[in-house]
Amino acid sequence: MIDLRSDTVTRPSLGMRRAMAEAEVGDDVYREDPTVNSLEERTAELLGHEAGLFCPSGSMTNMLGIAAQVPRGWEVLAESQAHILRAECGGHAALAGVTSRTWVSADGTFDASQALSLVSRPRGYNQVGTAVVSVENTHNFGGGRIADFEQLSILRSRTRELGVRVHVDGARLPNASAATGISLCEYGRLADSVSLCLSKGLGAPVGSVLVGSTDLVEEARSLRKRYGGGMRQAGILAAAGLWALGHNVGRVAEDNAGASAIAHRIAEVDPTVVDPQTVETNIVFLDLSSTGLDAEAFAASAEAAGVRVSVMGETSVRIVTHLDISADDVRRAGEVLARCVSENA
Amino acid sequence: MIDLRSDTVTRPSLGMRRAMAEAEVGDDVYREDPTVNSLEERTAELLGHEAGLFCPSGSMTNMLGIAAQVPRGWEVLAESQAHILRAECGGHAALAGVTSRTWVSADGTFDASQALSLVSRPRGYNQVGTAVVSVENTHNFGGGRIADFEQLSILRSRTRELGVRVHVDGARLPNASAATGISLCEYGRLADSVSLCLSKGLGAPVGSVLVGSTDLVEEARSLRKRYGGGMRQAGILAAAGLWALGHNVGRVAEDNAGASAIAHRIAEVDPTVVDPQTVETNIVFLDLSSTGLDAEAFAASAEAAGVRVSVMGETSVRIVTHLDISADDVRRAGEVLARCVSENA
Amino acid sequence: MIDLRSDTVTRPSLGMRRAMAEAEVGDDVYREDPTVNSLEERTAELLGHEAGLFCPSGSMTNMLGIAAQVPRGWEVLAESQAHILRAECGGHAALAGVTSRTWVSADGTFDASQALSLVSRPRGYNQVGTAVVSVENTHNFGGGRIADFEQLSILRSRTRELGVRVHVDGARLPNASAATGISLCEYGRLADSVSLCLSKGLGAPVGSVLVGSTDLVEEARSLRKRYGGGMRQAGILAAAGLWALGHNVGRVAEDNAGASAIAHRIAEVDPTVVDPQTVETNIVFLDLSSTGLDAEAFAASAEAAGVRVSVMGETSVRIVTHLDISADDVRRAGEVLARCVSENA
Amino acid sequence: MIDLRSDTVTRPSLGMRRAMAEAEVGDDVYREDPTVNSLEERTAELLGHEAGLFCPSGSMTNMLGIAAQVPRGWEVLAESQAHILRAECGGHAALAGVTSRTWVSADGTFDASQALSLVSRPRGYNQVGTAVVSVENTHNFGGGRIADFEQLSILRSRTRELGVRVHVDGARLPNASAATGISLCEYGRLADSVSLCLSKGLGAPVGSVLVGSTDLVEEARSLRKRYGGGMRQAGILAAAGLWALGHNVGRVAEDNAGASAIAHRIAEVDPTVVDPQTVETNIVFLDLSSTGLDAEAFAASAEAAGVRVSVMGETSVRIVTHLDISADDVRRAGEVLARCVSENA
Repeated sequence: MIDLRSDTVTRPSLGMRRAMAEAEVGDDVYREDPTVNSLEERTAELLGHEAGLFCPSGSMTNMLGIAAQVPRGWEVLAESQAHILRAECGGHAALAGVTSRTWVSADGTFDASQALSLVSRPRGYNQVGTAVVSVENTHNFGGGRIADFEQLSILRSRTRELGVRVHVDGARLPNASAATGISLCEYGRLADSVSLCLSKGLGAPVGSVLVGSTDLVEEARSLRKRYGGGMRQAGILAAAGLWALGHNVGRVAEDNAGASAIAHRIAEVDPTVVDPQTVETNIVFLDLSSTGLDAEAFAASAEAAGVRVSVMGETSVRIVTHLDISADDVRRAGEVLARCVSENA
Repeated sequence: MIDLRSDTVTRPSLGMRRAMAEAEVGDDVYREDPTVNSLEERTAELLGHEAGLFCPSGSMTNMLGIAAQVPRGWEVLAESQAHILRAECGGHAALAGVTSRTWVSADGTFDASQALSLVSRPRGYNQVGTAVVSVENTHNFGGGRIADFEQLSILRSRTRELGVRVHVDGARLPNASAATGISLCEYGRLADSVSLCLSKGLGAPVGSVLVGSTDLVEEARSLRKRYGGGMRQAGILAAAGLWALGHNVGRVAEDNAGASAIAHRIAEVDPTVVDPQTVETNIVFLDLSSTGLDAEAFAASAEAAGVRVSVMGETSVRIVTHLDISADDVRRAGEVLARCVSENA
Repeated sequence: MIDLRSDTVTRPSLGMRRAMAEAEVGDDVYREDPTVNSLEERTAELLGHEAGLFCPSGSMTNMLGIAAQVPRGWEVLAESQAHILRAECGGHAALAGVTSRTWVSADGTFDASQALSLVSRPRGYNQVGTAVVSVENTHNFGGGRIADFEQLSILRSRTRELGVRVHVDGARLPNASAATGISLCEYGRLADSVSLCLSKGLGAPVGSVLVGSTDLVEEARSLRKRYGGGMRQAGILAAAGLWALGHNVGRVAEDNAGASAIAHRIAEVDPTVVDPQTVETNIVFLDLSSTGLDAEAFAASAEAAGVRVSVMGETSVRIVTHLDISADDVRRAGEVLARCVSENA
Repeated sequence: MIDLRSDTVTRPSLGMRRAMAEAEVGDDVYREDPTVNSLEERTAELLGHEAGLFCPSGSMTNMLGIAAQVPRGWEVLAESQAHILRAECGGHAALAGVTSRTWVSADGTFDASQALSLVSRPRGYNQVGTAVVSVENTHNFGGGRIADFEQLSILRSRTRELGVRVHVDGARLPNASAATGISLCEYGRLADSVSLCLSKGLGAPVGSVLVGSTDLVEEARSLRKRYGGGMRQAGILAAAGLWALGHNVGRVAEDNAGASAIAHRIAEVDPTVVDPQTVETNIVFLDLSSTGLDAEAFAASAEAAGVRVSVMGETSVRIVTHLDISADDVRRAGEVLARCVSENA
């Protein structure tokens, strides 16, 4: 079975398992786990920030990044399909009390002016102020689109003038970096906080790191305890993260290439289903609306032929390439999915 | 001084004061206040709903309408400048734990397809589902625009199919009704819950009523107690509300006319500041951006000349007509504001 | 019908109604209501504090007093039967995120050492710190008991040393003051914040005032808006409050006397039901456990004989005297209730 | 250095590391991690419950156990020094909106009647109802005391009649079981939910399991995602938990014996500091109040002599034995601490 549902499904490699088995550990609630400390420092450095915080999930790093920077009753702005608003159980509101407004990007690309036009600087104590603009890079439900670096730079400079912070949901930032050649550090410097996921493209079993200023990270550390994310000898997991940072960052370029190849193969049989030009990283959305196919039925056909995909809507399917997908898997998946499109149509 | 900052500044008339002084009252926490009960029934009837709940503020009726229909971590959709998201202290998120996404209307008008395109029906337990679409009618920060009845009808039928509720922030619904000739009841029937404010155009000193099904209102009643909105002999205030429903509903047509007259007078001296065609009810937004005027300075000049307006942004000013503004006030305010536009430019 | 369920059921007198009808008002959200401003200043002065805030309910004043002084995740300490923890819908936790621990007073009296022994000064960021000790004076579910002034003084000085605040739920503080001869101001000075209810013993239709330092009250004012408690021409209600402060404070001594008389009458027929020595103010709890009577049945019998009481538990009934209970009502209620105790037993 | 600050500081053994390195894993957010599934089933079985949920921390299992059973604004009852109220950042209130009241146990023992006397069955919609009674077994800040089985049985049967649930914070339940010979299953059956910590006495690096009915655990699973506790290939950690359940449950008897030995040694030099009769499990509290010693200074002396302890108050110190403390460590720690008591006094 070729599992293209998500890049979260990867299993740790032998080398990564060895690193975990040999990790030096301590009680991280007392901040005495040397491997966690190393991972936090290394990630912060990689993204050009002062400090880092290791968390059990990407949802937690995003929620803490927001909660540490947005007072209750203030707002975060994001694109209407942002993962933090669509797929993290509403934690920012339900737990952190943060409200949100959205701009709408038709194609998943990022235009700073859309975000900036929504920024609210409150007049009067009943008005909600904007504390953070959040940008997802790459944009998962936007089809893995990369936020344009120039646009991010504009956002950065304008929000600074306005006293508003920038959070980057960088769950898949390595995929953007691999595609553009712009370093993680260059991207990182355009934000006040960044979450980087270790268990997506990077292939570690568990965890995500939030980076930012020392003050921000200390606030997030305190909140992490309240949310139940304080782990003890977490160095076991952090060792996998360090191993991933050492071995798996650059190789996500292969995942990007694989996604592109699959998209091209499918577009050959039906160009209305996907435009390969829009496939910039490791995510492919198929739009089955003009084919008459139902997404659930399509996914069932694909699974019967050995390929698992995610159903995202009535006529929408998502494909994600990752570390456990070989070049051969890419080729086979392309054939299977192209056949599912053409046969069922 | 002609006070055009908001229609919340009206003072109760003698007749209304007499109605309050003579009100029969009881302990409304025990549901024994006959005047409150009458007001709730009367308002529900007027809007075509089963039950009503009297609250100390419009913010509370909106918050309870949302909280009673949206589970924590679920979402409400609204236009990006909606009062519930912009100017109610973020209570829906900070207290009720409700998240939000927005569509963007450039001119304050309502297009159902924008709302509908955002509706989320969750797949998987991490996804946030849409529970309520909220429409503000008239749209305060949208310049008092009226939500089109056909569009509201489309929204109603499509959301029903999707299992999503509609809340109408009808703080100024009487102004819409007066402008279109469509009754409050016809508007009310297109929503699952409506908040109607008594202390804006209707001129009562305090209070707003939430209407909806009996179940919804009972849930809101219970929440009202938690939020601290349970009042005792509230019939004193409800009497003013009943008086307002009996005397002041139709007369908001005059406020609409006054706003239009002021807008026309200003447009005569500078048509870039306001397009009178967009002034549909009792709110006028002035856009000073092409005049070189600063909103704070403009407001100060106007106040020096006897007219108070609200500053809404660096080059944005709001004018609101109401019960305490006479035809003569309208004429004088138009002159003063036109002069402020032309002289300062 | 003699209604002894609560002192919240009083109806405004003619004089109070006239004061409301003639009140000068403005928009209190803009802080322009002169009558609200007067009431807030007058109440603050009366209790020896800098500033006051008028709210629609006692629950809101308590919740705001707590929320303005206790950070989320910190705690308030109170007696186990405190109204703020038992009978305000859990708002302090559900909305303000404040946790609580309790000491247990068997008889409703206040012993500072019980409160002080629970105070937590956190070591380590996982520990919950005590921010406020709340004392209810008089203690409603504690049988209207008065908190001893010496014990309050000890609490005040020790909490100051510990950096912990004191809130007094003074819904019925006038009843304590009338009983002890200690002024409201003397009581008020032993707290950082006090809530004083206008619609219980004082007989106003709606409202309660929170007093404290200017900073505390400004924070509470901002929160009041979020909770939906910002009213417009609230001077109508504030006029009743001012009238109550001017006419009804001292007269609660009569309510205290009436409660005592009723308790004595009942104790004559069955001294196990109530000990008149414990009836210090206007509240009487009847303990029917040794009589074999069921509280619901007892209340039904009393109501059939023209007296309404509150059922508080399976064998517990509460009687509250107030402004609308005459000396004759007291006498008759005593007879009716004594007969219900003796006949049904 | 002999580290007696907490039993959370243990490091995984070689066998446990090997189990982690070889664990079969999958994506647990999709419920496809076989090792996590095994651990959840195994723990549920051990405690006599239907289902289990693996979480990154003990704080999260307790918070989810409470949140899944207590509606917002309802209450949990616990002893005044309960870990869930004292040392979990107030998450139950700050995030789950749950309020709390406490009974006070002078010596850490459990008397069901104290808990039961606080249970509230609400009359009227303003009253807070009791949803859960939480018992900590063993009671950390109560000196590791064991909750008496008979008392737990009484609690169980009475709360069932009242419609109230029982949660057991069983972070150290194996220590109780080892001391009494009553099985984990027998203890487990007296509760609706139990949290069992894997990273305290059991020696796993990370994690805790919540057990309860299938419905309860499904609700907690959904909440776990919102709180950010959804981990991907968590089987790495679960493998350590399974290894711990297989190897380390019974051996906590040694920790209990070690704590007792240390207490006896200290009592020899000063019986006011600790009564060895009260040391029932692996926790020893030293009360330095009669010695004139300051806890911080005492801890510093001990550390200088090679023993680390936790300061819990101005004159209070906590000692915890665990898997990484050998018999020789126990002997040496006893000598060091006895000397610190006698020398400094």
